Amino acid sequence: VNQPEPSSAAASALSPPVQPDHASRADPGRPNGVTGPVAPSAAAAGTHRPVTGTRLTGGLLPGWQRRSLTASLPLALRQLEEAGNLDNVRLAVRTPERADADGNGERPAARNTVAAPPGSGYRGPVFMDSDIYKTLEAIGWELAHGDRPELASFAADVAGLLERAQRPDGYLNSYFQVTGEPRYSRLATSHEMYCAGHLIQAAIAHHRGAGDGRLLAIAVRLADNLVRTFAGQEKGLDGHPIIETALVELYRETGRRDYLELARQFVEQRGHGLAGDSGLGRRYLQDHVPVRSLDTTVGHVVRALYLEAGVADVAAELGDRSLLETSLRRWDDMVATKTYLTGGNGSRHVDEGFGDRFELPPDRAYNETCAAIASFHWAWRLLLATGGARYADHMERVLYNGFGAAVATDGQRFFYVNPLQRRADHFEKDDPGRRRAWFSCACCPPNIMRLLASLEHYLATTSGDTLHMHQYTGSRLSGADLELEVTTDYPWSGAVYLRVLAAPGAERGIALRVPAWSARTRIAVNHEDQEAAAGYHQLRRRWQPGDEITLHLDLTPRWTYPDRRVDAMRGCAAIERGPLVYCFEQADQADGVEVEDLAVRSGTVLGERPVTLPGIGQTIEVTAEGVHLPPAPLALPGDRVTAIAIPYFQWDNRDGRAMRVWIPRADA
Amino acid sequence: VNQPEPSSAAASALSPPVQPDHASRADPGRPNGVTGPVAPSAAAAGTHRPVTGTRLTGGLLPGWQRRSLTASLPLALRQLEEAGNLDNVRLAVRTPERADADGNGERPAARNTVAAPPGSGYRGPVFMDSDIYKTLEAIGWELAHGDRPELASFAADVAGLLERAQRPDGYLNSYFQVTGEPRYSRLATSHEMYCAGHLIQAAIAHHRGAGDGRLLAIAVRLADNLVRTFAGQEKGLDGHPIIETALVELYRETGRRDYLELARQFVEQRGHGLAGDSGLGRRYLQDHVPVRSLDTTVGHVVRALYLEAGVADVAAELGDRSLLETSLRRWDDMVATKTYLTGGNGSRHVDEGFGDRFELPPDRAYNETCAAIASFHWAWRLLLATGGARYADHMERVLYNGFGAAVATDGQRFFYVNPLQRRADHFEKDDPGRRRAWFSCACCPPNIMRLLASLEHYLATTSGDTLHMHQYTGSRLSGADLELEVTTDYPWSGAVYLRVLAAPGAERGIALRVPAWSARTRIAVNHEDQEAAAGYHQLRRRWQPGDEITLHLDLTPRWTYPDRRVDAMRGCAAIERGPLVYCFEQADQADGVEVEDLAVRSGTVLGERPVTLPGIGQTIEVTAEGVHLPPAPLALPGDRVTAIAIPYFQWDNRDGRAMRVWIPRADA
Repeated sequence: VNQPEPSSAAASALSPPVQPDHASRADPGRPNGVTGPVAPSAAAAGTHRPVTGTRLTGGLLPGWQRRSLTASLPLALRQLEEAGNLDNVRLAVRTPERADADGNGERPAARNTVAAPPGSGYRGPVFMDSDIYKTLEAIGWELAHGDRPELASFAADVAGLLERAQRPDGYLNSYFQVTGEPRYSRLATSHEMYCAGHLIQAAIAHHRGAGDGRLLAIAVRLADNLVRTFAGQEKGLDGHPIIETALVELYRETGRRDYLELARQFVEQRGHGLAGDSGLGRRYLQDHVPVRSLDTTVGHVVRALYLEAGVADVAAELGDRSLLETSLRRWDDMVATKTYLTGGNGSRHVDEGFGDRFELPPDRAYNETCAAIASFHWAWRLLLATGGARYADHMERVLYNGFGAAVATDGQRFFYVNPLQRRADHFEKDDPGRRRAWFSCACCPPNIMRLLASLEHYLATTSGDTLHMHQYTGSRLSGADLELEVTTDYPWSGAVYLRVLAAPGAERGIALRVPAWSARTRIAVNHEDQEAAAGYHQLRRRWQPGDEITLHLDLTPRWTYPDRRVDAMRGCAAIERGPLVYCFEQADQADGVEVEDLAVRSGTVLGERPVTLPGIGQTIEVTAEGVHLPPAPLALPGDRVTAIAIPYFQWDNRDGRAMRVWIPRADA
Repeated sequence: VNQPEPSSAAASALSPPVQPDHASRADPGRPNGVTGPVAPSAAAAGTHRPVTGTRLTGGLLPGWQRRSLTASLPLALRQLEEAGNLDNVRLAVRTPERADADGNGERPAARNTVAAPPGSGYRGPVFMDSDIYKTLEAIGWELAHGDRPELASFAADVAGLLERAQRPDGYLNSYFQVTGEPRYSRLATSHEMYCAGHLIQAAIAHHRGAGDGRLLAIAVRLADNLVRTFAGQEKGLDGHPIIETALVELYRETGRRDYLELARQFVEQRGHGLAGDSGLGRRYLQDHVPVRSLDTTVGHVVRALYLEAGVADVAAELGDRSLLETSLRRWDDMVATKTYLTGGNGSRHVDEGFGDRFELPPDRAYNETCAAIASFHWAWRLLLATGGARYADHMERVLYNGFGAAVATDGQRFFYVNPLQRRADHFEKDDPGRRRAWFSCACCPPNIMRLLASLEHYLATTSGDTLHMHQYTGSRLSGADLELEVTTDYPWSGAVYLRVLAAPGAERGIALRVPAWSARTRIAVNHEDQEAAAGYHQLRRRWQPGDEITLHLDLTPRWTYPDRRVDAMRGCAAIERGPLVYCFEQADQADGVEVEDLAVRSGTVLGERPVTLPGIGQTIEVTAEGVHLPPAPLALPGDRVTAIAIPYFQWDNRDGRAMRVWIPRADA
């Protein structure tokens, strides 16, 4: 391979090639043919199609996937037992069906709360089932990577439990079955369709990933109950979207067009107050304006972004370009005015919600981990629809920063909220604001696991006879009749080596994403340099096995400045290196240098050095010239110091002290 | 009067002397001898004593008091009927006492909520009674100003209702009586002692202000119930303080030392988890650390500051200097690190709470109006304890800004939350974030009214034989055997004229507060200039009727800059004029100049001009040189413009467009 990256020797040492335990069901050495979470039908509109059967082999991402398998999923299995999620389903199995549960006879008063009435035996919030389903989804995708007997056994046990809990008419929800509250009577808060949506997605994962249709049969019975209850009616909308994408995917998996139609109905009905009163208003539920008229993302972020993914799915399957356009417009607005440097969304704690445009406080950023996942899912659908490189750029930003930081190095603690600053004396209620093993509302950890288990499905697409590479990590993948091997230590190194393993006799295209942040990109095909294009660099030829493509992305650490309308970042700068946002954490600074009294000389050349840090392991530090300010408000800048930054995704692995992404500029 | 203020002619025209309908119960022409809300016992520690019987005659404050009487109080009376507060008490009258209500027999499950169970007939949150009591307190103080037959009649009716609702053992709380929930069983959320505290304060207002002991008898019976239930026990603490100050004041009014002892007990017991679980943690309730060990104000702001007022009261009556010191230390910390320019406190919406040190977002400031009132009350007690001018300076800042802005020009709409910035597209849930006539949680409006009705009691104190003037407004007051008349158009004009109306034969001191913001202060006695001291300017002589003191405070508009550790205000400046914080509101800018694209040339000389504005009336605008920035993020500053600011307390009286107190500096 020509033109080695200057730092590649050091960088290679950082990240020895992962040898994941990825024994494919089909052929251990080759892409396994498994279809991912989003599989547009043959009739769907859209310029791109996902490829199938990709396998992760090297770089950060397979390490994350493996850590999730070995450290996070076992924790989830214990927590589902300890927190009561599984006991709730067992209780539902033992609870006789009430005559009034389906709306006959006198109804108990509907409760507008996520907590169960005391005495019912049900534990936890109303949506506890969804944590089981997300974990099952993660297992479904993991089973595609090889034999996991304990996971398979757990999944089979839970499937058996769900079969016994499911009512003869297909209804399934442990909260409503155990408490006896009437079904579908308070959709704004009940999360019944939210749980159903996650069950459907878990079922699809097991069907596609493990070839197991047992959960799918349960999901179809529940979906049919929804169709019978809601199709063609104005009986309400779930306060928390996800049923929309789930029903579209179930249509894709089963060919049942009534599922697609119900998804379309739910998307179109939104905005007319049908979801009811959650106590936090209609904007919170995106139920104040129809999606076709909505001009900006508002309200609860996870709800908003799952809904957007559903809008994109419905638009794709129905070829509804005008519907798609509304989603594209809101995405542009969101990324320009309501998105953090880490790709996170959510400026307010009080409603886990979007703020006003340019309301982006780093310290009070909510940036729920589930919102990062939802944003990743939405952007993927827009990428499939349009092929726009900015969607892949954004997915990368979300993945390596806002999402990546949610998991501790050990894979056993998680962030629910992902701020870009923590003060030395930070408290969040009684809590100093660090990662935790689990949450009373545990939506995030199993959501992380389901994304990590399916991560390989978001690397590449085909458009016509061209294979598009969107995300770079060591991998084996195929598409457009090509089979490729990708070798890289990305994102530590910017050198990406692609090798053609198999090719048809005819011409094919290979398109390589050139990230917008890469200032000087070099591309060579079989050692012949090319000038890199913006967006996607298109290569087209009659490929031969053994052909080599080399991509050198420019990882030179760089300064980033905020839009002047972002009040909360005024006079500050941040550092990025390739796709990684950096942060200044107290643990890395010289003795006596407080992060809260640090200012940087922005614009100066940044240094970098590979190091091994306790609690973090291998990383690349970036160094910046700075000054240490005395504590008095108006005193002059003090000692010159070297400020040290580490990747944001690695923060909070040492202690609970101060951290900043946006650091004041000494020159401002 | 010598040395007229240069702008006094114009300023006088702004604010014609108010002729309040202040017919004293005693003698219409003289101070009426009425004791105010805080009356330390003869044995209390403290360097200052409040004066009695002050009357407001001119300037902004009597206008506010009169507006509250004529526009706000009638609204409150209607709302107490419409929102159900009075009906709740009527329901309590009709509800038979349950055998189990006092903890005998089987208790219904305690509900950790502020909402009543459906079907009980009780309306509104658990603390609805407190709105009645605050309104009654306002009426009590208003009755000291003259005959108010409608208010007196309302108060008598309500007193009769409360007499009938009160249980034979003195217990009185419409929520617990109507719902049958057991008394005192969930103090973290029940607000039972919070309501009791407001009843006691209302009773004291009627006793002191109207010479009417009917409410006091009810309050004493309820206080005796508290003593019997809690004295010497560890049975819990109310989640929302105010009972502490109320019991101390009831001790002062009745001489019953067991009330003081119970207040002391409640103050000392805090910090050990006795308040129970509110669902928001122990810091939220200030119940995580004993007050003697607490180093900074945390948690729910109103709770924290009412508790601090109680700490100061207990320390004063018991002469407990070490307890007082803890409160003084927290006050210093709060003002230095957790207080907005407007004097407001509360950086977080999610728990109506304090943030971390230097977490002071202008846009997401919570700054509850009740917190401003609580802060005013706390500072007054520290002023009485120490005589420190900074407490009076801060009370002025709170009064004219954070508190003053809570009421619309028409006196009929109120802010609950008082931010220092509103973006053009601002939404708070479904609401654009403007003042409202009332709230489902209506704690603020009647709290505003009780402070405005008692405002004259916070102008002056005596220390030894010296009369201290803390707040300047047209008034008649007496103390230290002196009687003074104060004439001024403050805060529009900085000229304050004091005239001695009566004096003893012996020497007496008069001390005039010189606000820290007044850069060049001039003082003259009988036309003889003196060099103004800092803090309090002390004058001592054998005063004669007709002696004149002239105080010229420097109201030159000035630039204010934030502490560099306040991230959310970095690179910005604000304008103040005398005690008034200014703000840039969209309605005042030239056509095409957006507040959100405005930057100022800070440090330049500011202009001022008296104007009459629709919706606001008379004011003084301040003008600043600035630039209008083009919308593109990195473009260079655009057109030079004159930016116009108005007093913050007058904002949101035109439209719902953008407002900023902290404005970006074009030179930063």
